[in-house]
Amino acid sequence: MTHVLFTKHEDTLNNALAAIETRGYWSPFAEMPSPKVYGETGAADGEAAFKARLNQAFQLDQPTNGETIGAEQSPFGFQLGVRYPKADVDTLIAAAKTAQQSWRAAGPKTWVGVSLEILSRLNRASFEIAHSVMHTTGQAFMMAFQAGGPHAQDRALEAIAYAWNELRRIPSEAHWEKPQGKNPPLSMQKRYAIVPRGIGLVLGCCTFPTWNGYPGLFADLATGNAVIVKPHPGAILPLAITVRIARDVLREAGFDPNVVTLLATEPNDGALVQDLALRPDIKLIDFTGSTQNGTWLERNAHQAQVYTEKAGVNQIVIDSADDIKAVARNIAFSLALYSGQMCTAPQNIYVPRDGIRTTDGHMSFDDIAQALAGAVQKLVADPARAVELLGAIQNDGVARRIEEARSLGRVLVESQPLEHPVFSGARVRTPLVLQLDAAKDASTFTGEWFGPISFVIATDSTAQSLDLAGSIAAEHGALTLSVYSTDDAKIEAAHEASIRGGVALSINLTGGVFVNQSAAFSDFHGTGANPAANAALSDAAFVANRFRVVQSRVHVAPKAAGAEAGQAA
Amino acid sequence: MTHVLFTKHEDTLNNALAAIETRGYWSPFAEMPSPKVYGETGAADGEAAFKARLNQAFQLDQPTNGETIGAEQSPFGFQLGVRYPKADVDTLIAAAKTAQQSWRAAGPKTWVGVSLEILSRLNRASFEIAHSVMHTTGQAFMMAFQAGGPHAQDRALEAIAYAWNELRRIPSEAHWEKPQGKNPPLSMQKRYAIVPRGIGLVLGCCTFPTWNGYPGLFADLATGNAVIVKPHPGAILPLAITVRIARDVLREAGFDPNVVTLLATEPNDGALVQDLALRPDIKLIDFTGSTQNGTWLERNAHQAQVYTEKAGVNQIVIDSADDIKAVARNIAFSLALYSGQMCTAPQNIYVPRDGIRTTDGHMSFDDIAQALAGAVQKLVADPARAVELLGAIQNDGVARRIEEARSLGRVLVESQPLEHPVFSGARVRTPLVLQLDAAKDASTFTGEWFGPISFVIATDSTAQSLDLAGSIAAEHGALTLSVYSTDDAKIEAAHEASIRGGVALSINLTGGVFVNQSAAFSDFHGTGANPAANAALSDAAFVANRFRVVQSRVHVAPKAAGAEAGQAA
Repeated sequence: MTHVLFTKHEDTLNNALAAIETRGYWSPFAEMPSPKVYGETGAADGEAAFKARLNQAFQLDQPTNGETIGAEQSPFGFQLGVRYPKADVDTLIAAAKTAQQSWRAAGPKTWVGVSLEILSRLNRASFEIAHSVMHTTGQAFMMAFQAGGPHAQDRALEAIAYAWNELRRIPSEAHWEKPQGKNPPLSMQKRYAIVPRGIGLVLGCCTFPTWNGYPGLFADLATGNAVIVKPHPGAILPLAITVRIARDVLREAGFDPNVVTLLATEPNDGALVQDLALRPDIKLIDFTGSTQNGTWLERNAHQAQVYTEKAGVNQIVIDSADDIKAVARNIAFSLALYSGQMCTAPQNIYVPRDGIRTTDGHMSFDDIAQALAGAVQKLVADPARAVELLGAIQNDGVARRIEEARSLGRVLVESQPLEHPVFSGARVRTPLVLQLDAAKDASTFTGEWFGPISFVIATDSTAQSLDLAGSIAAEHGALTLSVYSTDDAKIEAAHEASIRGGVALSINLTGGVFVNQSAAFSDFHGTGANPAANAALSDAAFVANRFRVVQSRVHVAPKAAGAEAGQAA
Repeated sequence: MTHVLFTKHEDTLNNALAAIETRGYWSPFAEMPSPKVYGETGAADGEAAFKARLNQAFQLDQPTNGETIGAEQSPFGFQLGVRYPKADVDTLIAAAKTAQQSWRAAGPKTWVGVSLEILSRLNRASFEIAHSVMHTTGQAFMMAFQAGGPHAQDRALEAIAYAWNELRRIPSEAHWEKPQGKNPPLSMQKRYAIVPRGIGLVLGCCTFPTWNGYPGLFADLATGNAVIVKPHPGAILPLAITVRIARDVLREAGFDPNVVTLLATEPNDGALVQDLALRPDIKLIDFTGSTQNGTWLERNAHQAQVYTEKAGVNQIVIDSADDIKAVARNIAFSLALYSGQMCTAPQNIYVPRDGIRTTDGHMSFDDIAQALAGAVQKLVADPARAVELLGAIQNDGVARRIEEARSLGRVLVESQPLEHPVFSGARVRTPLVLQLDAAKDASTFTGEWFGPISFVIATDSTAQSLDLAGSIAAEHGALTLSVYSTDDAKIEAAHEASIRGGVALSINLTGGVFVNQSAAFSDFHGTGANPAANAALSDAAFVANRFRVVQSRVHVAPKAAGAEAGQAA
């Protein structure tokens, strides 16, 4: 029973399956907002669609108590004013349970086909989603388009491909025939039913609502589960648009659209989320957010499979370099990109206090610190260009953290507010870079300082730098580790540190790739091997436990020729 | 780097991989204790080897504090008197950590090759292991041979095959090349290192120490982890022999044998196990045992991936039958086999109080109850034959439970002690069968009464029987569900109940297959979808999270021809 939507997207699926095995570069979704791909009027239409949603009730034909809810504020300085249908938890769970019945029965090819169709519709909505991501997360437009649109869609497709890769390996039936010597064989027909877990809960974050939310959403859907999407109260719109599109596709395909529902909330929704997360019907939880909340879910939501991405301390080890300017440029870009509000952004930069070797000769610790500082300052010197890189600070908490961090060490680069040339109320800050010392500041740099805050840390040696990198990743979590060295032995030692810390390693990035970037189908995002995440995006473990197999067996006539003769005897 | 042991066993591995995909009958390990397979002197040698171990110190060259420990008693009525090296937890963990370093570095093909070699050695030791299983678990010899030997080895091989199926899908490296329009592409070389979790802990049970212990042990080993094997204090010997063989193979292959160690204990080792299970270095736990202990591990051992098999209530629904005598014979065998001490043995048998249709006409509830009772009585009428089916009662707790159960309802078949013709002190009891009523006895039959205790339960209808079966499986756990019906609609309803309860269904078993039996490579043992187990033996989810992938990436020259031209330009 191959669903028409499975057939429609089968080539894409097969390409994705090939990509996750070879892990070379591949993407079906164009990352450039080009009119050739997205249509001559795509950009204008998407912006208009976004603007039309402002200060309006968001139309979503799903269970609601009749009230509306929502208090999103653009980090670029205005209220979104979008009001979402308010739903109570009991009603939403009941609706999801009902919808899940026929969805479950539809089977793997339908789950996958419908998921892929939703994804292709999301791709067409990339501009509208880009504006909604921009004005909830504070990402500059280009990043909001890429990370919120095609790159998030890549991660979704990757999760679907992994799900299908597991589903397709379970035969729907089997003939089992066990020889019994001269007697007729024991012969049974077996059926294997894929049974989804039930209802999944996706808990979105406020910085990458689609990129971090899609893998769990689509892994759940593609394995036959219903999903309640609970966005961060500060970044509802991108996921509300997503839910709306998913419901359209489900309805068109003949399913109860309550397979996917939205639970919009306002700030301080912690008690509501904790109540929801412990409901017996919630069998899967995908969470991106704070260590405190993620760990609470891991330790309390025993009825569910829980996948978390939490805080971490990303690190750079500078041992030696061919071209320190290229090193500094690359690092500065990583620090400035979306104001360090990426879970992959570096924070701790270790430099030996005695300095390093470069092709231009020995450079002191201060030389390196100044090179980094200079590169950051250069990058943000022109406000009009800077804001396209920095974006805006997502929330006041991050802005306050910058203030708090100022006194932690010697200031190498001061953080300053910038005037946004288009959005006068935008909350823009340049990166803060401080100097610390490994000998005395461990209590500061072993924690995450989320936002545009980084530390250049003097160490006794590269050996100490790598030791710190490995142990901090292992104990406090990390999503990225970066090393700069011209010495193969040091790079091999960095490999060992990355394995000890369970963290992905980037080596000598001086070109157009930045440590913050993680490419779907090739880079595993997170390892599940340190406290920053208990899962990776995506791998077999991320999907294989979202469904179970329930089998049946019944005696049938033997098939083997010799066997039948035996039975006749 | 293909290890010689991988090459040696590659055909077996490939056959196993094919078997888990097609799920037809397959096994490389002969289940009959035939001299043609196991050697003319195999049986005698194995028995002699077992006997030589009695009342001796068990030689195991592993870390010990110099003392010995062990208090196993054969359910057939004698002390084993085997003393194992006593080890303290800290020393064992430290030794495992050290051993794990070089084991990790050896890589997937070596882990799998060494695991397969261990398995082939275990197969050769099947007779010795059979006697050790018999005299710890109380299984009769033939079952101890099959379930403790070749069938356990099948389950081990299945786990290795699933592990390899995951490992082989992670490329060790990849070339990633992203086009940049007219500019040279971004080009990176990536390495993907398989990083085992660390140390696994296998907590054995006293009824199927090898069958239930091997999947976790070999899933851990085949994914590069070190393993501490902590047998149930009542069934150490089969796993001690296993550990010894594993250590021999590891040593011969050039590894630190502390990759696999034994932690022997004496009864009431709960506090020791809880202490060990929470150690930060224990990253994987495989447990078979009580719901109380299993749930404790699931809720407290947060540092580990925890795989549990716990208690359940297995059920049979009788709706209608062609041949009630064949039905009764099959069920009676399932009740008597190893005295109901199988996790898959049926307990609740639902029969409509108004009776059922058979090809011999209508039969009343009492007719069915008497048919079942008669079949059980017939099966145990001859003590010498009966003991080869019943085996012995593993421990006094089970014997006491039979006493306790007597008063729960009307006795259909009384449990009686039997004299064993060979072992005068054997603790043998025939099955107890009671009559209950669904209307008033739910508090009795919704719990597990482990041992030869079963209930024939009067229900209002097959619909009620199926409703009970589904909801009891979902709420209290179950590994098996069996239905007898000549009505396709009822069988379909049983399918629905099995899916609701997340439990494997057997249909109209009247021949040589019994609901207790679960065939590796074809039957999933447990579903992970109800409280009886949080995992299935075996599937992708059982193995995929026992290792993680840590990657690295570094810029390299582009490979694409056009790209190089671009770079030159």
